[in-house]
Amino acid sequence: MALRHYTLDFNLSAPDCPTTVHGLQSIFQEQEMTETVHDTEGHGYLATFIGKNGRLVILRVTALGLLTIDLQCCEGDNIVQVENLLNTLEEKLRSLLHGNIKRVKRLPALTRGAAVDRYWPTADGRLVEYDIDRVVYDEDSAYQNIKIMHSRQFGNILILNGDVNLAESDLPYTQAIMGRGKENYAGKEVLILGGGDGGILAEAVKLKPKMITMVEIDQMVIDGCRTHMRKACGSVLDNLKGECYQVLVEDCVPVLKKYVEEGKTFDYVINDLTAVPISTAPEEDSTWEFLQLILDLSIKVLRPTGKYFTQGNSANLTETLALYEEQLGRLSCPVDFSKEVVCVPSYMELWVFYTIWKK
Amino acid sequence: MALRHYTLDFNLSAPDCPTTVHGLQSIFQEQEMTETVHDTEGHGYLATFIGKNGRLVILRVTALGLLTIDLQCCEGDNIVQVENLLNTLEEKLRSLLHGNIKRVKRLPALTRGAAVDRYWPTADGRLVEYDIDRVVYDEDSAYQNIKIMHSRQFGNILILNGDVNLAESDLPYTQAIMGRGKENYAGKEVLILGGGDGGILAEAVKLKPKMITMVEIDQMVIDGCRTHMRKACGSVLDNLKGECYQVLVEDCVPVLKKYVEEGKTFDYVINDLTAVPISTAPEEDSTWEFLQLILDLSIKVLRPTGKYFTQGNSANLTETLALYEEQLGRLSCPVDFSKEVVCVPSYMELWVFYTIWKK
Repeated sequence: MALRHYTLDFNLSAPDCPTTVHGLQSIFQEQEMTETVHDTEGHGYLATFIGKNGRLVILRVTALGLLTIDLQCCEGDNIVQVENLLNTLEEKLRSLLHGNIKRVKRLPALTRGAAVDRYWPTADGRLVEYDIDRVVYDEDSAYQNIKIMHSRQFGNILILNGDVNLAESDLPYTQAIMGRGKENYAGKEVLILGGGDGGILAEAVKLKPKMITMVEIDQMVIDGCRTHMRKACGSVLDNLKGECYQVLVEDCVPVLKKYVEEGKTFDYVINDLTAVPISTAPEEDSTWEFLQLILDLSIKVLRPTGKYFTQGNSANLTETLALYEEQLGRLSCPVDFSKEVVCVPSYMELWVFYTIWKK
Repeated sequence: MALRHYTLDFNLSAPDCPTTVHGLQSIFQEQEMTETVHDTEGHGYLATFIGKNGRLVILRVTALGLLTIDLQCCEGDNIVQVENLLNTLEEKLRSLLHGNIKRVKRLPALTRGAAVDRYWPTADGRLVEYDIDRVVYDEDSAYQNIKIMHSRQFGNILILNGDVNLAESDLPYTQAIMGRGKENYAGKEVLILGGGDGGILAEAVKLKPKMITMVEIDQMVIDGCRTHMRKACGSVLDNLKGECYQVLVEDCVPVLKKYVEEGKTFDYVINDLTAVPISTAPEEDSTWEFLQLILDLSIKVLRPTGKYFTQGNSANLTETLALYEEQLGRLSCPVDFSKEVVCVPSYMELWVFYTIWKK
């Protein structure tokens, strides 16, 4: 059912048009494509060409000298033939426009509507195509859409509500959000908020802590990752209880409140909630207020010498990061923080991580 | 002169059409867009809508149930208005198609023909958009097109003939191609082939080698990087000669041949030539034969205990990598090799590096 969509663009030195465009007609005639020239009310030239099997070419020349070709075909079409047509158009245009070309740009074809969706934009809004070749898991839980997709280079990737969360290649994420290499976990008490992919838990148990409590709201994330993200979680999710850990399948907000009430504290609190966290009973209006609530409760259960670790966001989202840092200044308990920019392989963008501690 | 090109796709559960499409007409009428319905000879529905200021909408519904919208506008158009139009179309379609939608996908807009080109496909042919905000340097040398472009997150990026070579963020590339952390450079003699960005040279001089000789063919790469890639090269390119290094601005092939003749040898040979290397007098037909020539000469100037380091290619280009490894078995001197997969921040794909030594 998918379409392949090719683009081919010529930046011209000087606006050009009718002669060039006529030079292409024999190519379209050979392809038995039906031409329609449109009235653009003075905004350049526009023609569409409809061919066999749903092939479609759109040829535009803007008044300012950009010539664009869009070529769409069905996924089952003869790709060699289609790419040859585009090659022929490119060669012909290069010769017709000779001396009037500033740049030619031909992008890898977009695949639209494919069963396996390869396009997962970055947090800073850029278009990136992943080398995803199959859908491993795709379910809606009570909280979110959970996809696990296979990437040739990154292994399986967990995608929650369209956001790339963690790939099996992403140990740098897990290490960054744990302060790995900087902190001594031996004998410590650790609280993980979220973390349903099991990546942090799997790394943390290796460090011989006294006890890790992980609070993940979504059993289906745990189930999907236990089966399909084993390079990240190992066998740690096979049981919700181990020698030095327990997994509570619960909303972390009431759990945190209970800990505050009981006076229970931790050496490390690791916030691995999704960028827009989920709550069963959000008492606050906005994401920001919810983030603040989590932060405030987390700092309350943190020992005086403890550390709170969390992901920030894309290094490019400087305003969002600044807002977060502002928020850190408004907690009920004064804190200091440091941050680190890390390259997480599957993210296709640099990511900021925070370490926060009580002043 | 650029165009923004938005796409919005609906995968439908069951083929749908005329009623849906008519439901959109009032929106296009409000926008004073002129409709043309095309004869697709039975291949679904196709209509184009031409509006003010060069706005163009293409609405397709394929026979197999993919509804696609393309919306193009000029770069100087009112982006808020244009995105509102797309929002309105999306909302209307969501309500018209209610219950018949399998997936909705809206990608970040493509920018076509822009002065600052943000699209640099990966070696394995995927479409990726970089956060490039300005062109820092753009010149044609006698050998290649040299671009240095500024990325918000990666710093300046060197792009040779359209291939991303190195960004200021890419210390992991330099470390991988030097065997950094695994090799002791102190007192050693080092030969760098290519490496005009100065990244390897800058790192290597810190390790107190006896002498580094770098052979780079393109003075303009050196000049561009000395000025604009200082986070990678530091001040090492300010002079072509230093206490423990010399830079020869020459084709490396005759230099290697001379070294072979003279019996000159090195502890480390680092091949940092571009994936498709340049020669002033290629004696061999194909890239592969040229690569083989470089390899053979390099191994000849390598001491028995020496190491030859080189980049391979994208981890996904398994066939290319296999061919290279086959080639390693056909050298005049038998060699062994190891390889490593590394995440180079600006590459947007995992990259393979080789270490090769004489058996």
